[in-house]
Amino acid sequence: MPAPVNLPSLAVGDRVQDPLLVLDVEQHAQDNGSPYTVLVLGNRTGRISSAPFWLDQQHVVAGIARNHVVQIIGEVKTYRERKQLDVSSLRVLPRDSVDLAQLLPSVGGGDVARYWETLDGWRRELTKPRLKRVLDLFYEDDDFRRQYGECPASVSGHHAALGGLLKHTVEVGAIARTITRAAGADGELVLAGVLLHDIGKLEAYRWDGAFDYTDRHHLLGHVVLSSLMLDRRMEQEREPPCTEQERAILHHLILSHHGRLEYGSPVRPVMLEAEVLHWADNASARTASMADALRDSDAFGEGGLVSQRRFWELDHRRVYRGTSDWGKAGGA
Amino acid sequence: MPAPVNLPSLAVGDRVQDPLLVLDVEQHAQDNGSPYTVLVLGNRTGRISSAPFWLDQQHVVAGIARNHVVQIIGEVKTYRERKQLDVSSLRVLPRDSVDLAQLLPSVGGGDVARYWETLDGWRRELTKPRLKRVLDLFYEDDDFRRQYGECPASVSGHHAALGGLLKHTVEVGAIARTITRAAGADGELVLAGVLLHDIGKLEAYRWDGAFDYTDRHHLLGHVVLSSLMLDRRMEQEREPPCTEQERAILHHLILSHHGRLEYGSPVRPVMLEAEVLHWADNASARTASMADALRDSDAFGEGGLVSQRRFWELDHRRVYRGTSDWGKAGGA
Amino acid sequence: MPAPVNLPSLAVGDRVQDPLLVLDVEQHAQDNGSPYTVLVLGNRTGRISSAPFWLDQQHVVAGIARNHVVQIIGEVKTYRERKQLDVSSLRVLPRDSVDLAQLLPSVGGGDVARYWETLDGWRRELTKPRLKRVLDLFYEDDDFRRQYGECPASVSGHHAALGGLLKHTVEVGAIARTITRAAGADGELVLAGVLLHDIGKLEAYRWDGAFDYTDRHHLLGHVVLSSLMLDRRMEQEREPPCTEQERAILHHLILSHHGRLEYGSPVRPVMLEAEVLHWADNASARTASMADALRDSDAFGEGGLVSQRRFWELDHRRVYRGTSDWGKAGGA
Amino acid sequence: MPAPVNLPSLAVGDRVQDPLLVLDVEQHAQDNGSPYTVLVLGNRTGRISSAPFWLDQQHVVAGIARNHVVQIIGEVKTYRERKQLDVSSLRVLPRDSVDLAQLLPSVGGGDVARYWETLDGWRRELTKPRLKRVLDLFYEDDDFRRQYGECPASVSGHHAALGGLLKHTVEVGAIARTITRAAGADGELVLAGVLLHDIGKLEAYRWDGAFDYTDRHHLLGHVVLSSLMLDRRMEQEREPPCTEQERAILHHLILSHHGRLEYGSPVRPVMLEAEVLHWADNASARTASMADALRDSDAFGEGGLVSQRRFWELDHRRVYRGTSDWGKAGGA
Amino acid sequence: MPAPVNLPSLAVGDRVQDPLLVLDVEQHAQDNGSPYTVLVLGNRTGRISSAPFWLDQQHVVAGIARNHVVQIIGEVKTYRERKQLDVSSLRVLPRDSVDLAQLLPSVGGGDVARYWETLDGWRRELTKPRLKRVLDLFYEDDDFRRQYGECPASVSGHHAALGGLLKHTVEVGAIARTITRAAGADGELVLAGVLLHDIGKLEAYRWDGAFDYTDRHHLLGHVVLSSLMLDRRMEQEREPPCTEQERAILHHLILSHHGRLEYGSPVRPVMLEAEVLHWADNASARTASMADALRDSDAFGEGGLVSQRRFWELDHRRVYRGTSDWGKAGGA
Amino acid sequence: MPAPVNLPSLAVGDRVQDPLLVLDVEQHAQDNGSPYTVLVLGNRTGRISSAPFWLDQQHVVAGIARNHVVQIIGEVKTYRERKQLDVSSLRVLPRDSVDLAQLLPSVGGGDVARYWETLDGWRRELTKPRLKRVLDLFYEDDDFRRQYGECPASVSGHHAALGGLLKHTVEVGAIARTITRAAGADGELVLAGVLLHDIGKLEAYRWDGAFDYTDRHHLLGHVVLSSLMLDRRMEQEREPPCTEQERAILHHLILSHHGRLEYGSPVRPVMLEAEVLHWADNASARTASMADALRDSDAFGEGGLVSQRRFWELDHRRVYRGTSDWGKAGGA
Repeated sequence: MPAPVNLPSLAVGDRVQDPLLVLDVEQHAQDNGSPYTVLVLGNRTGRISSAPFWLDQQHVVAGIARNHVVQIIGEVKTYRERKQLDVSSLRVLPRDSVDLAQLLPSVGGGDVARYWETLDGWRRELTKPRLKRVLDLFYEDDDFRRQYGECPASVSGHHAALGGLLKHTVEVGAIARTITRAAGADGELVLAGVLLHDIGKLEAYRWDGAFDYTDRHHLLGHVVLSSLMLDRRMEQEREPPCTEQERAILHHLILSHHGRLEYGSPVRPVMLEAEVLHWADNASARTASMADALRDSDAFGEGGLVSQRRFWELDHRRVYRGTSDWGKAGGA
Repeated sequence: MPAPVNLPSLAVGDRVQDPLLVLDVEQHAQDNGSPYTVLVLGNRTGRISSAPFWLDQQHVVAGIARNHVVQIIGEVKTYRERKQLDVSSLRVLPRDSVDLAQLLPSVGGGDVARYWETLDGWRRELTKPRLKRVLDLFYEDDDFRRQYGECPASVSGHHAALGGLLKHTVEVGAIARTITRAAGADGELVLAGVLLHDIGKLEAYRWDGAFDYTDRHHLLGHVVLSSLMLDRRMEQEREPPCTEQERAILHHLILSHHGRLEYGSPVRPVMLEAEVLHWADNASARTASMADALRDSDAFGEGGLVSQRRFWELDHRRVYRGTSDWGKAGGA
Repeated sequence: MPAPVNLPSLAVGDRVQDPLLVLDVEQHAQDNGSPYTVLVLGNRTGRISSAPFWLDQQHVVAGIARNHVVQIIGEVKTYRERKQLDVSSLRVLPRDSVDLAQLLPSVGGGDVARYWETLDGWRRELTKPRLKRVLDLFYEDDDFRRQYGECPASVSGHHAALGGLLKHTVEVGAIARTITRAAGADGELVLAGVLLHDIGKLEAYRWDGAFDYTDRHHLLGHVVLSSLMLDRRMEQEREPPCTEQERAILHHLILSHHGRLEYGSPVRPVMLEAEVLHWADNASARTASMADALRDSDAFGEGGLVSQRRFWELDHRRVYRGTSDWGKAGGA
Repeated sequence: MPAPVNLPSLAVGDRVQDPLLVLDVEQHAQDNGSPYTVLVLGNRTGRISSAPFWLDQQHVVAGIARNHVVQIIGEVKTYRERKQLDVSSLRVLPRDSVDLAQLLPSVGGGDVARYWETLDGWRRELTKPRLKRVLDLFYEDDDFRRQYGECPASVSGHHAALGGLLKHTVEVGAIARTITRAAGADGELVLAGVLLHDIGKLEAYRWDGAFDYTDRHHLLGHVVLSSLMLDRRMEQEREPPCTEQERAILHHLILSHHGRLEYGSPVRPVMLEAEVLHWADNASARTASMADALRDSDAFGEGGLVSQRRFWELDHRRVYRGTSDWGKAGGA
Repeated sequence: MPAPVNLPSLAVGDRVQDPLLVLDVEQHAQDNGSPYTVLVLGNRTGRISSAPFWLDQQHVVAGIARNHVVQIIGEVKTYRERKQLDVSSLRVLPRDSVDLAQLLPSVGGGDVARYWETLDGWRRELTKPRLKRVLDLFYEDDDFRRQYGECPASVSGHHAALGGLLKHTVEVGAIARTITRAAGADGELVLAGVLLHDIGKLEAYRWDGAFDYTDRHHLLGHVVLSSLMLDRRMEQEREPPCTEQERAILHHLILSHHGRLEYGSPVRPVMLEAEVLHWADNASARTASMADALRDSDAFGEGGLVSQRRFWELDHRRVYRGTSDWGKAGGA
Repeated sequence: MPAPVNLPSLAVGDRVQDPLLVLDVEQHAQDNGSPYTVLVLGNRTGRISSAPFWLDQQHVVAGIARNHVVQIIGEVKTYRERKQLDVSSLRVLPRDSVDLAQLLPSVGGGDVARYWETLDGWRRELTKPRLKRVLDLFYEDDDFRRQYGECPASVSGHHAALGGLLKHTVEVGAIARTITRAAGADGELVLAGVLLHDIGKLEAYRWDGAFDYTDRHHLLGHVVLSSLMLDRRMEQEREPPCTEQERAILHHLILSHHGRLEYGSPVRPVMLEAEVLHWADNASARTASMADALRDSDAFGEGGLVSQRRFWELDHRRVYRGTSDWGKAGGA
């Protein structure tokens, strides 16, 4: 299968002939009451809006709904300084005819393999039998691995891509290992926290189309979903894979990883390993989010170094993209 | 067995000859370095401190530890305006020789029976089969009932007494029923929330001596402990007693009952029944706590109407105990 | 008089021939600068927007202003997925020609009578002469009763309907009575707080047309307005109806009923009865508000259980309207 | 009458033969249980503790209570680096035998006269008849003036001295006049706010002995007490001295002067004059409080420039008392 | 040069023939996709939007950018109840052909001179040699004076006008002098704080066109920029103009003047003079901002006394513009 | 020189014959007024209190002050369950006769060398000339290196030891490098932030005796002190070592490293490198602090796993020291 068209880098006049995912169907109307429709279309490289389908083209978009896969033929034009895709032909494809990985933002299949390699390498260093046994309940389970390798780390925030949760996990793991050395924490317990803290996102998010929250997310939140997933899986074992105190410690690592009650953790970290996990998780999530904000060129005025048009979602902050080569031949 | 001596109402000169629980063993010393010991002794009516055991009496208290039951003979004296018990004889009793209910603050056995009657009456009104089935897993289990009828609702705050959790549950239930009618909520679901929201306190608190937190409390908190207790119990059933969505709803009622993230709920109420439960729980806990503060006569100066000497623990507030008969013959 | 047309349940094609209240006159313009006008029209069942009055119809709406009563003839159409009323004829009616109760959201006259019955029943239980005397200053005053039976409990939040304040008062009273029993508070004093805490809303709100705030509300707030109304009324009596301390206690019940300084109470509750009142007031207001949010079907996507399109105004929360019959034959 | 002895400047060995006010009677005990008593004694210059009255001197202090006036003969000694007054003779005086102004901290009678002069000068500038009429209800009332000239501005914070409220009022007035000019506010209305905003302190504080809060303060707070005092006084007039809107504006100035809900104002300032009053009030209170903190030499270590031993009560801040002469001959 | 046309007071039908500054170039589009452009034009009296330049007029505005100076001929019309300028002719002028003071909001040249007179008068009262020496580094420097006399005190908040910083400085100085007298602070040190606290705004803001932030503002903030500007200037002197402790004190006055960490001060005031400065700065900035909000007639409904349509930016507050003449002949 | 005696591991009956630093001189008194003195003595291994010096031994401690070095002969006893040193002989030593590194907590000289090696290794990787030039101003300056290698990272919090700042810097550097890789930040700029962010602590802390704050710390804070130190050093260069924009970026890294205004940063991070630095700094400081809390055995009851007696200073949290071997032969 050919690589999907790179939507963010399209130029005016480029032609598109590609399967795309319908991320949204927006209903608008002219001021005279005449309705028109705009499709938000995406693939794994990004997203683009269609030109309006006016009243006389409504039959073209009739029946098109969110999460449909459509074969598009069109040409890129501009409108209000934003590119839009003027669609000349549109056909609904069977859902299974295109790999979802081509239609949704993704960290990339090759990366996924590399992340697994890193994670599994760390797991092989484990020496504590019962700890390993618990982790194996998940990380030796093919079905879990398949899902965990696909799930995004958030719906629209940091690492919002197929494989994003896995990537985030590897980042947290790497950062946590460095903090562990500095703080003299128990590295195996920290690793357990890294591997378990977000497993509930498999139940909190959907990625079988545009990323979305499940109802379970709204009712329980991903923090407690992780704890319940751990608990139920252990209940299914004939023999308890670890002691009750150990189980409580694992729950504590999961439950406290947001660090503060007001961030959704029902308890604050009371163990060094939980504290390490919390800061590693924060460091990965926050810096990934800021890197995204810096890449969002729409937020900056032309040539501007400060994001004037859009704030970074985290506490409503502007970001600065000024750089310098500090006198280095060949630049920054 | 005779009623235990009423400690708060003892007068100077009264003699005590009773079994008491050792709530604390305080080590002090005179300024010349000479050590002395004070015992904090209690029974279900309250607590009193012993007079100091000076250096030459240290053998009397040697080996005495927190949670010992001791047979005391002594006389009430005063010291720095507070009553103390001058102990002339002290003998450790076997732990089982005295009913714990005589030694710890308690709502009273008769009350417990009455509270059960109320709760069970409400349960009999249930018409939804799967909801009843889930509640019966706990409320038809004799062991659960025995524990639930003993457990305090807090260690040192509201309803900190044997049977206090049950009493609190009945209060929450009664208040929730009234709110339910006003708000048009689903009364059976609210009742389920009332009956399940605090079950984790059975694992969060100890009452086999002076009330205390378990390590599980520090690691998981009673909110999540309630959810895990519900979940595990349902896992043990061959047939799931309700659907997954229903289970999620029950978890939501438990998890959101503190109302806000900063009060320890990992999710805020998103259902009307959860909102009703939250306010009923708050109303019972806060007003019980204030009633305690108003009864704490030590906090008021002699004849004073405003608590000058001690703040109400809830947001550091003074309380006012002024009353009036509003002209009613026979008084307030 | 016939029942007013039920605006929320109108279907496309339905004809309307009814007096309606003008809640707002919105001025818009097409992008070519051509102006058009939309009327927001309502009666006691709800509200609906008119179809645009284009440039050539401006004479039809000339002179129409907020709070006019108009006789409308029109037909329901849809536009951008929302219903609108295409008005073919519009005529201003004399304000007094239609009962305001037909034009504004209302709890219903029958309900009002029932609420009074409940309140007056509670008042008859009072045994404290001076307390009764103070309450009678208001609750035996026909003019006060007439206004109190009409006033909404808020402009656009909980119980925003004619008679809403009375309904809210009865709810607070019922809840407070239950809490009073649990907490051992003085029920007569609590009832006084229930009956007096919101009387200032008579001066803080207007309901002689679309609900609105008075300037007095912006300058003093309804909490202090209640206190001033109580105080002035008592000043008018030749003999003070109660003692100064009793008067201070009544003021305290009013002033502290929001519970916290940041919620607009200049003092926090320091009496048990004030604490009871605060929680009862909160429970009624918050759950009524959430019930409204759950009824707002526009906030939910079609078939969606979680309110995606609009947050519940109280701390920006989504709500969940999933239900289950829990296996009960005949449903939820 | 001779000036009272200057307590803060007493040196070891100095003899005292003076009437003093008993501010507190502290009961202590030696570690052997032997009780002793310490009197905290004060006059308008400050306070000093007595040396302990041991067991064999208990008869000397028997019957001595807070707010007694006592004739003391004694000598200054030191104990634990603090001065104490070793009392050789002590006799209770009739309360009226000594002017309270000699016994309590005071801004000084001469200052009071000067403050009145300033205030009355400002009042004479008033040109708006109804505004003047309202202010005269208080400021032409001898009884009000007598009380207002005595009342402290706080019990233990800023301007906690007889005449302190008057002094604070003059400070607020002077600052408010400067802000008024900068902001273009209505100076007469601002002056009304200055003169009325704290009148409720006459009912909130007691200064007929050691400064203290009244029960009314705990139940209503001084902000609303000011509003009620204004309202009742106006009710007593046969003719209303101003319009209802004007009355509401005066209430607004009083009620909003703390600036924020969380500081005890039930409404925030919505008028320019209220905003001016708020900042002037804050500026006077906060800087007076910090000046006190800088004068509290006990808070600083010997020779230290930073207050290490005691924080400034306002947000737990240290203060710095370093100075420099900046090269000026003759010093700072 | 003739006075610039007064933009806020233009009436429909008025003709404009004036140089104006382009504050913004807004790109819009009709719903049919046809683009149009609106210019936001301003001079020192205020701002006005142009009527749309439709597709066939795009050549007129081609090349027009923010901060261009344009000679405009046009006529005032209305659209959606707002005035707009229908431009018939537009010509770009050389930037230097018009005095910036005519094009940007300004406190007025005459006022600037008067403000300098006041400030310099205060400076002449200084008696402390080293303090004077430090202030002279800036206030005897013609280049600094020129810039300081132009710089606005904020980009869009209080005193956002040419000369606004100077005006604010004089206001802070006047208020601070009054507080200084009340609090017994060191007036010379306070004056130093007044003169230095905002000097960094010269580097934080741009006023060579529409007011804007510099990148340095985003990276360092004006508080620290003030400190760095002071420090560097002193480093350039061969002889240090004051001692290190004195320098630290000046830095403290600058750094703490926002009063709280959360308002951008890295340290809280620990000196009385810093506290005085903080409250004077606040009083000037907040009341100036509220006065602006009260003058913003668009925020009020026609005839309305409460700002319904726009909140005062400071904590989202409404403002009230009701006045009364209090019975004074000749009005308010 | 022999290793100093290990104070925390002393047992009752051990004899001490060592030079120790006087950390504090506490004046107490018996209840009979008889004064006594306790010395708090320390060396690099920890601290211990002396037994009381009673009245008849006051001559022994006369003239002894904080920061004196004394030669002690004594024996370890216990009192109130805490060890104390019964001093039989005490002699003041010349300050220079003992290496400060023996008297204050220290990370150890060998560690310091190792930390420098790591830091210098990172510096050698720098490729950007002007960045390197700026860092060399400090890190090639022997005097700076000597001080930086001694300075503690805090007075009583994390890394409060000689060499602690260097240790903290290395930890922050290691963690920041890992985050840098994950986030795709500019590693050289991050390193610059790591090396410069805390340099102001050299001026904020004193370690020429018991650790303490300087007055400069109270007036400016260590964050701004770092910025000023950087700025002044660059001013001293004849040629500016980097551009003004680059200088602003370095200031930004320093100023924003606390991450939030309320934590003392006058600006929040707006660059990715600043965000990385912030989280790395937090991770090092917080986990080191929690590790200290877990080592504080006094905070735990005997055998207790939860710190009951003392909270972790960071947000008043308890910590849990339970461990498990998870079935690993040979233990945890």
